[in-house]
Amino acid sequence: MIKVALFGIGRIGRIHANNITQHTLAQIKYFVDPHSPDIAEFAKSFDATAADTDTVLGDPEIQAIVICSSTDTHADLLLRSSQAGKAIFCEKPIDLDIQRARRCEQAVRDAGVTCMVGFQRRFDPTFESLKKRLDAGEIGIPEMLTITSRDLSPPPLSYVNCSGGIFRDMLIHDFDIFRWIMGAEAETLYATGSCLIVPEYQTAGDMDSAVVTIRSQTGILCQINASRRAEYGYDQRFEVLGSKGMLQAGNHRPTEVIAATAQGISTDCTEPFFLERYRIAYTMELKHFFNALTTGAPVRTTITDAIKAQELSEAAVHSWKEGCVVKIKSSSTT
Amino acid sequence: MIKVALFGIGRIGRIHANNITQHTLAQIKYFVDPHSPDIAEFAKSFDATAADTDTVLGDPEIQAIVICSSTDTHADLLLRSSQAGKAIFCEKPIDLDIQRARRCEQAVRDAGVTCMVGFQRRFDPTFESLKKRLDAGEIGIPEMLTITSRDLSPPPLSYVNCSGGIFRDMLIHDFDIFRWIMGAEAETLYATGSCLIVPEYQTAGDMDSAVVTIRSQTGILCQINASRRAEYGYDQRFEVLGSKGMLQAGNHRPTEVIAATAQGISTDCTEPFFLERYRIAYTMELKHFFNALTTGAPVRTTITDAIKAQELSEAAVHSWKEGCVVKIKSSSTT
Amino acid sequence: MIKVALFGIGRIGRIHANNITQHTLAQIKYFVDPHSPDIAEFAKSFDATAADTDTVLGDPEIQAIVICSSTDTHADLLLRSSQAGKAIFCEKPIDLDIQRARRCEQAVRDAGVTCMVGFQRRFDPTFESLKKRLDAGEIGIPEMLTITSRDLSPPPLSYVNCSGGIFRDMLIHDFDIFRWIMGAEAETLYATGSCLIVPEYQTAGDMDSAVVTIRSQTGILCQINASRRAEYGYDQRFEVLGSKGMLQAGNHRPTEVIAATAQGISTDCTEPFFLERYRIAYTMELKHFFNALTTGAPVRTTITDAIKAQELSEAAVHSWKEGCVVKIKSSSTT
Amino acid sequence: MIKVALFGIGRIGRIHANNITQHTLAQIKYFVDPHSPDIAEFAKSFDATAADTDTVLGDPEIQAIVICSSTDTHADLLLRSSQAGKAIFCEKPIDLDIQRARRCEQAVRDAGVTCMVGFQRRFDPTFESLKKRLDAGEIGIPEMLTITSRDLSPPPLSYVNCSGGIFRDMLIHDFDIFRWIMGAEAETLYATGSCLIVPEYQTAGDMDSAVVTIRSQTGILCQINASRRAEYGYDQRFEVLGSKGMLQAGNHRPTEVIAATAQGISTDCTEPFFLERYRIAYTMELKHFFNALTTGAPVRTTITDAIKAQELSEAAVHSWKEGCVVKIKSSSTT
Repeated sequence: MIKVALFGIGRIGRIHANNITQHTLAQIKYFVDPHSPDIAEFAKSFDATAADTDTVLGDPEIQAIVICSSTDTHADLLLRSSQAGKAIFCEKPIDLDIQRARRCEQAVRDAGVTCMVGFQRRFDPTFESLKKRLDAGEIGIPEMLTITSRDLSPPPLSYVNCSGGIFRDMLIHDFDIFRWIMGAEAETLYATGSCLIVPEYQTAGDMDSAVVTIRSQTGILCQINASRRAEYGYDQRFEVLGSKGMLQAGNHRPTEVIAATAQGISTDCTEPFFLERYRIAYTMELKHFFNALTTGAPVRTTITDAIKAQELSEAAVHSWKEGCVVKIKSSSTT
Repeated sequence: MIKVALFGIGRIGRIHANNITQHTLAQIKYFVDPHSPDIAEFAKSFDATAADTDTVLGDPEIQAIVICSSTDTHADLLLRSSQAGKAIFCEKPIDLDIQRARRCEQAVRDAGVTCMVGFQRRFDPTFESLKKRLDAGEIGIPEMLTITSRDLSPPPLSYVNCSGGIFRDMLIHDFDIFRWIMGAEAETLYATGSCLIVPEYQTAGDMDSAVVTIRSQTGILCQINASRRAEYGYDQRFEVLGSKGMLQAGNHRPTEVIAATAQGISTDCTEPFFLERYRIAYTMELKHFFNALTTGAPVRTTITDAIKAQELSEAAVHSWKEGCVVKIKSSSTT
Repeated sequence: MIKVALFGIGRIGRIHANNITQHTLAQIKYFVDPHSPDIAEFAKSFDATAADTDTVLGDPEIQAIVICSSTDTHADLLLRSSQAGKAIFCEKPIDLDIQRARRCEQAVRDAGVTCMVGFQRRFDPTFESLKKRLDAGEIGIPEMLTITSRDLSPPPLSYVNCSGGIFRDMLIHDFDIFRWIMGAEAETLYATGSCLIVPEYQTAGDMDSAVVTIRSQTGILCQINASRRAEYGYDQRFEVLGSKGMLQAGNHRPTEVIAATAQGISTDCTEPFFLERYRIAYTMELKHFFNALTTGAPVRTTITDAIKAQELSEAAVHSWKEGCVVKIKSSSTT
Repeated sequence: MIKVALFGIGRIGRIHANNITQHTLAQIKYFVDPHSPDIAEFAKSFDATAADTDTVLGDPEIQAIVICSSTDTHADLLLRSSQAGKAIFCEKPIDLDIQRARRCEQAVRDAGVTCMVGFQRRFDPTFESLKKRLDAGEIGIPEMLTITSRDLSPPPLSYVNCSGGIFRDMLIHDFDIFRWIMGAEAETLYATGSCLIVPEYQTAGDMDSAVVTIRSQTGILCQINASRRAEYGYDQRFEVLGSKGMLQAGNHRPTEVIAATAQGISTDCTEPFFLERYRIAYTMELKHFFNALTTGAPVRTTITDAIKAQELSEAAVHSWKEGCVVKIKSSSTT
């Protein structure tokens, strides 16, 4: 039984906590969250204890750290946990400062600890099935990827102010999808966008509607369209064109009811939010993490994957601000 | 060029007239319609002549008769055209009196003329494609057929009063679908129904909602559900379950627009009416008829098919009125 | 915390056991299964104890009994648990002998205990959503119901020999759907069927392909088609035609991948088996049961529902054997 | 009855000829095609005459010219027909040399003749229905457009050598869709692409896979992905995201057959080719043209539309060759 400490009991922290309790492989021993007054009570409901970071990292029984605290705490926890020799599951991003993120990558490497980053989409049953079929050659050689990535409704300005902006907090997932699905690295990237929904985003140096084009060294093409608002629900689709056909990952719906009236034939809206859409994925990614710790198998989403996706986010910001095409230079040590 | 006389310039007669003018194989010489005051002008617009039945049947240049006049004229025209040695295309039904219909069948046989009945659904591209794939063995041996047959809105009481009722005017098409698609003959039939939409139908000895179950000699099962009203459009679907899978014939939509709003994801309603739904089928059935006349190939929908479908209509009426299961005895000379 | 004893740790018993452990309202204290050698170990893995029936029924701490043991034990356990004043969740059927089932119904009523029967389909999110929308008047007054009910592959002959046959073990669920969705009771019923898949079923007095027609006192029509085999997966659909439109409950698929190749555009097969298809429903029905016990609210699927569905199964067997239409007489005391 | 002369009896010329004969408003008097040896016979089958350009333009009875001849003849015929005061329907493009195309635009304007360009997609029932619903405000204010544009199979190298390349012969239609659907003009454009299918295209200075990003002055975003090959059929879709939802234009299929087997649930491939996909559109665009001539209403696709789409093609070529973002400057006199 792997003993775990979980940092941060916000929305995603609570999801992970619940998922971990369903594992037969892992058990939460500590919760850490200095900003949560009810942490002791919360921990107790999981038969765990509230603790501080020093206690957790100093406890030799703790094998794994799950980092769900706020972004600005990630780098420090990653560095300290690595040094303490703990296996790490960390929500994205590593750090909004890419140099600092790279130092974390180096620290993880030096420490030789397992570090998995929370790109949960790679564990979605639909996306995973598509990837397997693509790799099995069902549509031949992949040539083009089109990604649609839309939230139900725009986040508050306060979130945008500290998230790093649409390319860093939202499209980073899509950049990871590109790298994972196409098995390719970007050579050039072009990004642009607009403030069409929340004018205040512009003052904050951000946008709500964004499009990106990536071309790989081998000529693979990828287009991403992203919006902070889709009235019909959370919209997460992509399609791969290959030499022998196309594979599409469609949206999930809450039910399979079809209504036919004089107004048309209609199905449900898509799942409204990423918590519903990726409910299974969140379960599967932690299962994967603890399985990897148990068997020694490598994790699917490494800290290097996180750095490389973040490099594309940085390139997108640059492309958009300068209005130019950016040539990607990875300084990540793959 | 096959010279044709067309009887009856109502709705369906005009559709056939337009379709015939697009053929390279046939040309309308005469129109006959004693009830239509503007028949001469109408005929002229097709470069044809208005005429009476005697003239038409006495003209040796006329090879083919297309009967689109009212149901009560069909039998007489069939008998006289047969005797005159003309090829015949006749809208269903032959005659509401099954005995009279059988005499027409005999007359056609005695005369040795080609006689095709207007079961246009057999020429619908979707239905025809399904039939070909079924016959090619795509889903193995057919076991069950489920037919959904619904009009957009109920006909006026006046129509019901002279149509012979829902089993004779509407389900006769579905009985033909059963025989054609499954390549089977009914052994037992059970029918029931209700007046749920137009209470006046009940006084007229009819119903608006009907269900039928057929079992063939070999154990093939068929269920038909029919309604005079479907608010979402004309609904004509069926599905065949076979030993290796299922083939479904879905509805056609006017366009492929999909709308996604907070209310749901919706497509168009189905085509509203049989004239739109079977527009191509009407073209194809006459093409088939004239091709058959030219090449000498047999026609797909014979007068015997019409009699056999009508026998199922009669059995359905009997089953419903008596509340019993009916054993089918065909007196048709196949 | 409601203390529970669970009888029978076969396939469905294990599902229920796992679901109960996720409840905050209930806790399994005892497992009973004389036929299972590893019952003690199994019970231990749930922090519970293996026990015999007398111990369980004599323990005043036990509030609820969950019956997942073999069909022939249901009636006895129902009678004894009622007398012991326990709340009961019982898998269908009550008993293959309808008279005995009715005695259980009476015993439950006399004892005044809560008794819920495992018609899990009523808790399926798709079916439940459809029912709510129907009741909200979205398609007006319901007129017709069409149910498709097909297993992936036929059960072994040994199962058929003791299950009571297709109408009693399989269509009983569909009869319950009819009653629940349409809010109607059958007046007449007609059933027929064939042995098209497993010829040996015929010798066993059963069939593999069945069709049923039900007409309610108010003229509502229902058709059910059922098969023991559907190569494309477990097929559980139904559609309701109403005065203002139609509501359809479609199948669930494992993923939303769409593949487009020269062979066509395809999605996944349906979920293969009822355990996957109704995974959520199984969770929800027990949640409903324990909620009802906690709040005192009535349960959705009562023993009377079970008796009434079973009466339709008996009528179907009779109709099929006699080749006649059956008039339904309920002796159940609603 | 409008007397028409049609130039060029290749594939598209024959389609237009057949469509014109079905009009009640127009009649072909002359066919012109110096490269077709059987032109006289062909003309005769339409009750028309083969003639040369001088005869046609000198015949005062001729009101309208339909230009379907090879691209290099368009400009000259446009100039001469304008000067002769004829109404003109011209297949795209005007001329591969944009300056020459602009001179044609000026000539048409100076002559004051009606000139319609063959962007048939604007007459496709699905696209037209979407446009009407968008303009009616169904999804609020349009924000983003995603276009998928894929041929079934790549054209021969000989075609690519004289077509002007993928941006000029293929994406010009998509550029027109952008302008028409979004009612917007491009401010910046970025294009890139690859040779992934036919390596020889590269030597010819072309590519087979292309992606384009357009941003309008008002911030509207458009992404186009195009490929010369889609094994599953001709793929022509687009989707508009608006402030209140999304409208998608899906592909058309030959039939509505659905097959469910152990391999999956599948529908037909899309229509294989633009001739089938836009069969109705070709009929409707000429109907629109002759209606406009009869009523004096403006045509929907003007020569200015053609110039503006071509300017985007030129910008795309430039963007791709230089690897930069292009700022659009229209010299067209709107």
